[in-house]
Formats: sequence, structure tokens, C-alpha cells
Amino acid sequence: MREIYLDNCATTRVDKDAAELAAYVMQTVYGNPSSLHKKGIEAEAILTEARRRIAIALGCAPDNVYFTSGGTESNNLAIFGAASANKRTGNTIITTAWEHSSALNPVRELESRGFVVKAVSPEPSGHIDIDKLAALTDGDTVLVSCMMVNSELGSVADIERLVKLVKLRNSKTLVHCDAVQGFGKLSFSAERLGVDMLSVSGHKTYAPKGVGALYMKKTARVAPLFFGGGQEKLIRPGTEALPLIAAFGLAAEAARNNFSANLAHLTALFKHFVKNVALTENLCMNSPPDSTPYICNASLLGFRSETVLHYLAAKGIYVSSGSACGKGKPSYMLKAAGVSRARIDSALRISFSKHNTIDDVDAFFLALSQAQKEIVV
Amino acid sequence: MREIYLDNCATTRVDKDAAELAAYVMQTVYGNPSSLHKKGIEAEAILTEARRRIAIALGCAPDNVYFTSGGTESNNLAIFGAASANKRTGNTIITTAWEHSSALNPVRELESRGFVVKAVSPEPSGHIDIDKLAALTDGDTVLVSCMMVNSELGSVADIERLVKLVKLRNSKTLVHCDAVQGFGKLSFSAERLGVDMLSVSGHKTYAPKGVGALYMKKTARVAPLFFGGGQEKLIRPGTEALPLIAAFGLAAEAARNNFSANLAHLTALFKHFVKNVALTENLCMNSPPDSTPYICNASLLGFRSETVLHYLAAKGIYVSSGSACGKGKPSYMLKAAGVSRARIDSALRISFSKHNTIDDVDAFFLALSQAQKEIVV
Repeated sequence: MREIYLDNCATTRVDKDAAELAAYVMQTVYGNPSSLHKKGIEAEAILTEARRRIAIALGCAPDNVYFTSGGTESNNLAIFGAASANKRTGNTIITTAWEHSSALNPVRELESRGFVVKAVSPEPSGHIDIDKLAALTDGDTVLVSCMMVNSELGSVADIERLVKLVKLRNSKTLVHCDAVQGFGKLSFSAERLGVDMLSVSGHKTYAPKGVGALYMKKTARVAPLFFGGGQEKLIRPGTEALPLIAAFGLAAEAARNNFSANLAHLTALFKHFVKNVALTENLCMNSPPDSTPYICNASLLGFRSETVLHYLAAKGIYVSSGSACGKGKPSYMLKAAGVSRARIDSALRISFSKHNTIDDVDAFFLALSQAQKEIVV
Repeated sequence: MREIYLDNCATTRVDKDAAELAAYVMQTVYGNPSSLHKKGIEAEAILTEARRRIAIALGCAPDNVYFTSGGTESNNLAIFGAASANKRTGNTIITTAWEHSSALNPVRELESRGFVVKAVSPEPSGHIDIDKLAALTDGDTVLVSCMMVNSELGSVADIERLVKLVKLRNSKTLVHCDAVQGFGKLSFSAERLGVDMLSVSGHKTYAPKGVGALYMKKTARVAPLFFGGGQEKLIRPGTEALPLIAAFGLAAEAARNNFSANLAHLTALFKHFVKNVALTENLCMNSPPDSTPYICNASLLGFRSETVLHYLAAKGIYVSSGSACGKGKPSYMLKAAGVSRARIDSALRISFSKHNTIDDVDAFFLALSQAQKEIVV
């Protein structure tokens, strides 16, 4: 059976050359980057090259790149680290109601430790009102955290505008952006955005699970989560995950080199998808029309997500009902966006990669029309 | 030039089949273990199998294994997590003066946050006096943390005895063991030791950098360092580093299956090394005679470690002066053990793997005798 993987926001297949580089590093450049002999120096060179590649992809200097174990750690490091290192700035954290759980739950944890948290809900249009979010900033605001691309709807937030408006209100407030679903898919430069911190993950863009990075502006003060050796300038101690870091660098470079071609391809898939939604009975888009073309969220009204998901899976077509981390629970993101319960319960997230084709989209819609006939509601 | 890698306590070469499994998982079983469709279920099966393998190697049930990004994270999670989740038990932490920086620095950080820390120095014999360490336990002791094998000297601590003595004094005190240098090298069972938490790392035993595990007894309460999705029963959120976890499982299984053969081989290398030390002018052992055969620490008196290290490296022989994480700084571990400054400044750590041979040891000693002739002090 041909498998059609349409759950690329959950995770992606690793690029062949990135996977091979990881295996090569494991067996050949296996030194510890902290070792002072040749095996260590070779390993350090791999680390330096990967950092350079990630820096180019992020639009920053290599010095601003800190490797982590993934998006969850990057978000936790940014949020806990900024809050605890900048207590003098204030005690209030501003965020949105539909952040990924790895950004929302650290903020909730800080709330339980005494921080004041203000969370803006998305508009009915499926967007965050950036002006409304920024307007919450006051003299007590230590941190504003906002995701670049919503992981379930694909809505894009204007982070550059957010930073400008926040800094106008309080120049000391730090701005963090969870860019996990934007990295490699949207064109941005961390420096141009002006954010203090920005989180990215490898496995959402053809690099392995287990590696990510945190961009940090030189002026941003962030306390570490781990204590130990001197790696990553004491911000993230621990022997560097060199095979994964090398693969991450290579995959990020490839994503950048093929950015326009990939985007054009993905835009064509997205348009084809939207056109088919209009032709399909009971199906309505939840993603806004200007969503990133990598994510299509749509509800097949009257059919429970889980039932449809399993029906499609039996035909080798893999989609999700929301964030993988949510494990099938009703989406708090869609709820925050004011989507009706009926739509939430029947929501499907279809997320594309560069490997998907127009045929994949057609196969999805064919299966969906069969589902409507065959599934007994 | 033939390369002789004798720095296996810094890191090891990854087993070929483990590296190949990682690359295979990256490209083929690339689903997210949290996804509900077939790609997710396949990925979850890999995770379950790796957890089973690590559990067997650790001597515990799979439910007690929590995957982390490595030894540093395991130690940080155990120490910060236990201290913050068990404040009612007490406010005092007991440890030793020669723990690895990833265990010592978290304890020091907790001290700066108000915990009382008591650290026992090793005896002149190069061992921790377990009775002395345990005797510090009182009604206020929340945590005792002690490493199984010292990473510079190879000294082995009797953790089972430590746990018994500590629990006799205070049954509520949690005991953590940093077993990073013991895992795969010593025969132990986490359950039989009786520890509440035990840290291990992949890359010290033929698995990749970037993965480790924390054993946790079911009764141990530990607060997470990260907040996010529900992975690892909320103790360690974040998409699992599946390729590395799979490789870690395979390498741990191999280490266990070949345990006796590896140990016999390493013991022969160690004995050959010790015999040669006695025959080499100006060279004295720092490791105790009953050290693990994987680590030999010796000082070439009158010659600075760094100079000798570079001399050997030029001949393709790679050793270290101490922990890789220390980046060549004078060893605080040897200092804690009461080793003289002259010995510390000339200390060399030679650490073996299953790949090393008697010829490697002979090549090391030949180069060392040449060093004594050629290095101008």
C-alpha cells in the first residue's frame, strides 16, 4: 500500500544526506568537541560549521545560536531563563492563548510561582491581534512570548511589528518567539525581527528529532536550565549532540538553498487543497486564507476527527487532528480561536512537506469522499 | 598515521549497527511517537523496544526509565527535581567533592538558592568513605548524590551500601547515583542498588551523543525541568529523540550481551598498563589499584599534562588530562582526592574501549618514553 504522509507538522522525514551525515559523525568524527586533541578538534569543527549553517538560516551571527535538545527545551530555556534572570524588569508575562504546550505550560508554571500572566485570545479571523497583544505591555512586563506560525491552523503572526510595539512601551521587556513551525518555511531573519529570543526545532524541517536551537540576542540575559560543563557558553551545558547538530545544520542549509522552489511547490499544493475543499461536501477550512501553505486545517462536519483519521490511516493516508503533543485531545488552540465545538470535534490537520505531490492531495480528497459514504455516523 | 584513541571516558565511537539504526529510524520510522496513525505507532514501537532494552541493561522495569538528552540533563533533572519536589523532607543535600560538574554544579546552584550542602572529600586512598558520607544524613537530608565511578580516577563507590546506610538514618532521604561512567562497564542493577534515581548517558558506551536516561524508582517524586507535552509521563516533555534512543537501546543491549568478554579484555589492558607504569621512569598511578579497568590515571612527573597530551596527539595517540568538560583546567577531582599539585599538573587520563588492544597500550608507553627524551622541560 502506498503511504501518503500528510502530518509533517508533527514531524518530517529526515533528509537522506542529513541522516547519512549523522551516521558518519557517529562513527568517524566521534570525538568530544571539548577534548583538546585532534579527535576533539575535528568534532569542534563540525560543531562550528553546523552553527554557521544554522546562523545563516536564522539570519544571525553564529555567536547567537545555542543548541538544545529541541523545540520544547528551547521554549523552556527562553521562558524560564528570561523570567528568572530579569526579575528586576518586572513580574508580568504576556502571551497568547494558543501557544504550543511547550511555551504555554512553562508560562503557566511561572504563574503558579507568582508571576502575573496575561494571555490574548486569537481573533475570529484566526489571527493574533498584534496591537492588542503589544498593548498589554507595561512597566512590569518582563517577557512577551508569541509563536510565529500557529501549529494547528498555520496562522502567521507579525513578530517584527510585535517587537517594535512592545519595545516602544517598555524597552526592557524581552520578546520571545516560538518559530518552530516557521523555521525553514517562512523567510525571516531573527536579527531583523528584533526578537530577543527565538526557538527552532530540527525535526519539523527534515532534521532529526532531538535537536533544536535557541537564538539569543547578545544583550538578552537568560539563566540556564542546566548546570555542568562550559558548553554553549554555560547557557546549555552537556556534551553537544554532535551527530544531530551536524544533520540539523545540513538540513537547514538545504531548506534555505531550496527555499523558493519549496515554497512555490507548497503554495501550489495549498491552493489545490483549498480548491478541493470548496468542492467537498461538509468540509470547511479552519485555517485562514493567508495561512502558511504548509498547514491546512479543515473540519469534516458531522464526522469525528478520530474516526476519519483512522479511516484515512487504513488507506495509508496519515493526517492528524491537531498537535501530536496533544495526543488526540480536543484542540485548545481551536477553542481559543473561537472555533465551534462541532468544528473542533471534526477538525483535521493536513500538513505538507516538500515530498508531497498534487497526487497526494487528490488521494486525500478521494479518500475523504469515500469516508463520507462509508463511515456510519 | 594510525590513530590510537585512548580517551573513551570523554566519549566513544558509536557501534556501527547502532549508527545505522539511527540513520534508518531517521529516514524510515520517522513518525512522531505521539501521533495516532501508523507512522506514529511504528515510532512508538521503536521507543518501547529501546526502553525495554535500556531497562534490562539498568536492571529495572521499563516504566522506571525516562529518556533525556544525556548525562548532564539526567543529573540536573534528578538533583533539581528531587530537591524541589521534596521540600517537606528537608533542606540539606549531601554529596562528594569530586562529583562530575553536571552533578556538582546543580548542587552548588541549589546551595545558592538556600539549600545546605555538605560535601565529603575522598580519602587519600582515592575512594569515597561511604560510611562517612552516609553518616552525614540526618532528619533534614532531602537528597544524597554520589557517583558510581569517578570519571578521572575510575574509583568505584559502593552505592548499595550507601543506600542502605542512608535509608537507615532517614527513610525519606532520596539517593541519586550518577552512573554515567559505570553503565555498561560495571555489572549492577538499579533495583538491587536500591537508589531512587540513577543517571546514565549514551555516548560513554558506544551510543550517540545527545541521549541519556534517568532511572527513577516508582516512589521517587521528582519535579520536571521542562513543561510541555505529555511525553515521558510529564517528567520529560518534548518529542522523543527517537533515532538516538533506538541507537542507545541497541548499544546498551550489545554492551550487556558482551559484558563478560569486554570486561575480561579491558582487565587485560588495565593489567598490562599497570605493569608498564611500574617499568616507566617518573610515571606513577593516581588511580587506585581496584579502579575500573576502563580508566587509568597516571602522572608523568616533571612533565606538564598539556605538553605530553600534545606530544602524544602529534603521534596520533589521544589521551586527556581529565574530564573533557573541564577543557584542560587543573582537575578539581584530583585536588579533592588530595593529589599533590605536581601530580595534578602532570596527570594523564588514559581511558579504554573494547576497540583498544595491547598494541595500543604498548604504543602509548613507547611514545611516553620518547616524550621523556624529546620534550624540553
